[in-house]
Amino acid sequence: MARFKSITLEWREDRVIFIDQRKLPIEEVYVECKTHEEVYGAIKDMVVRGAPAIGASAAFGYVLGAMEFKKKPEELAAHMKAVKDRLAGSRPTAVNLFWALERMERLFASTPSLSHDELIKTLEREAIAISREDILTNMAIGMNGASVVRDGDGILTHCNAGALATVDYGTALGVIRSAVEMGKRVRVYADETRPYLQGARLTSWELMKSCIDVTLICDNMAGWIMKKGYVNLVVVGADRIAANGDSANKIGTYSLAILAQKHGIPFYIAAPLSTVDLSCNNGEEIPIEERSHREITHIGEIRIAPEGVKCYNPAFDVTPWNMITGIITEKGIARPPYDVSLAKMFESTH
Amino acid sequence: MARFKSITLEWREDRVIFIDQRKLPIEEVYVECKTHEEVYGAIKDMVVRGAPAIGASAAFGYVLGAMEFKKKPEELAAHMKAVKDRLAGSRPTAVNLFWALERMERLFASTPSLSHDELIKTLEREAIAISREDILTNMAIGMNGASVVRDGDGILTHCNAGALATVDYGTALGVIRSAVEMGKRVRVYADETRPYLQGARLTSWELMKSCIDVTLICDNMAGWIMKKGYVNLVVVGADRIAANGDSANKIGTYSLAILAQKHGIPFYIAAPLSTVDLSCNNGEEIPIEERSHREITHIGEIRIAPEGVKCYNPAFDVTPWNMITGIITEKGIARPPYDVSLAKMFESTH
Repeated sequence: MARFKSITLEWREDRVIFIDQRKLPIEEVYVECKTHEEVYGAIKDMVVRGAPAIGASAAFGYVLGAMEFKKKPEELAAHMKAVKDRLAGSRPTAVNLFWALERMERLFASTPSLSHDELIKTLEREAIAISREDILTNMAIGMNGASVVRDGDGILTHCNAGALATVDYGTALGVIRSAVEMGKRVRVYADETRPYLQGARLTSWELMKSCIDVTLICDNMAGWIMKKGYVNLVVVGADRIAANGDSANKIGTYSLAILAQKHGIPFYIAAPLSTVDLSCNNGEEIPIEERSHREITHIGEIRIAPEGVKCYNPAFDVTPWNMITGIITEKGIARPPYDVSLAKMFESTH
Repeated sequence: MARFKSITLEWREDRVIFIDQRKLPIEEVYVECKTHEEVYGAIKDMVVRGAPAIGASAAFGYVLGAMEFKKKPEELAAHMKAVKDRLAGSRPTAVNLFWALERMERLFASTPSLSHDELIKTLEREAIAISREDILTNMAIGMNGASVVRDGDGILTHCNAGALATVDYGTALGVIRSAVEMGKRVRVYADETRPYLQGARLTSWELMKSCIDVTLICDNMAGWIMKKGYVNLVVVGADRIAANGDSANKIGTYSLAILAQKHGIPFYIAAPLSTVDLSCNNGEEIPIEERSHREITHIGEIRIAPEGVKCYNPAFDVTPWNMITGIITEKGIARPPYDVSLAKMFESTH
């Protein structure tokens, strides 16, 4: 049986193993999933998060779903449909999840004559291919995006669009990594990214491990450091990009885009084309996940707000296309109008 | 001996007692200060915070400083100078601290012939007068500001400019209280206000206690709820207002003002005239306190960021006068240009 290992996940014959991103950077703990239901839980509970990472994770979940099947062959198709639907129900916003599951499902549908063992090997190879391609895609995004980074830049990023949000290397942080690999000196400012603190916990950890200069700030300091002239460039990831370029990303991204515009600072999205959902005409059509109030009222077991306080906890917001300087993909940098430039990139894929 | 009691502080003959705002809303714990040094510590460590509240606190600290004096009368002036300087060194941005200490010092300087006991009684009466006046001032701010609140408004506020930031009633929250007392229905959105979480811990607690509808959000959600149309008005406090209207307030206020402007939402500052520092021509001259990185990297004893990560933690930012719709004071609502309107309010004070 095949194996695959990255910073975010490992495939080991009959299980997928995730670094538990809820525990970083305090502990490096791993979570093993041997069923598609366990993968569903790992995505839903944010053991693994980040649009490209949950795409690859769901693909492995689909393989596990096939492995679990012990009934009569004629029931397999219904079983795999249920597996796909369950995994697809883990989180609603990041489109890479559906993209990866549809890719797995297409392969399954196209190989009706295989034995069960051969089917599993085929699906397994596909999930590994999705993972490997993700890394190569991120490196291409990095190469394409490095051109917008100038030597000496102060770069602000939000949430974690890094190695941990992907299979490896990262999208927004991939751009920064590539720029650094090309010898450009940069200072990164990482928004801590409430409520889940992906910036404090993951981005600063990842960049420190890679010896890239990083300063952690609270989200509400972003405007002030722009005013002070510390920031020349904003690069963030995306969870779903509509056909017109409207981009859903971690809550707070929309505010950042406004602040960048006010200060004349270029604002880039870095994401693979698998994040683009051509079936959404614009941001209005992107479903926005709302998460538990406990993410706001508690840090770990510590309560930081009054018992019973009302909260609002949208996990994402949508930045309108006309506030985005460019969308950095593996095929190059799309520029507005995105309905034209993104469509062109899809044509050139085939 | 005289007594005075409010939500924020209590004067009990020979000591000042603070509700420990670091522990709210989880515990209602009180901190007793019997020396000016203890009051210095309570302000510096944020047992008590909020510009008007630390002004009144310092005034009581000054009284305690006088009570501590046991040496020869000719050494009293030097002692009181040292007491004032120590208290003034507790925090640099909120001007009310210096305003209150100077008021106490002027009184001390104008009463050279009093016995020590009479002096203490005089100073004590003045500290209580500062406290009582603060409450009346806030009620006047509330009355003046209630006119900008419409029935049904969604009001966003940042940090805590409430009863706990003043002696009682509050500035920005005083405006909301007054509007509610006049029968206007409002929904308040409280920014949690990282890193110190005054919004999560204090504003939501205070408003819930007053039965005012409040929804807690993370700071980075402010732009999105404006986009969604949930917010029609922003009201915040201030720690120091320059002669031209540039206003220092809790970090994140500047970003909020930009977001409000982008969405066409009026943005008001509510503060007593004691917050206006005519000796500062503009915001460039207001010193901005930087606080410990631990406020960002830890919540209580829980570490939420990698060990040794670099941070930037400015406690305040400055919102330029031309982004402020009005400054609500006890004398009415100042409108731009503020160098004219604020100056006029000071003239009418005498």
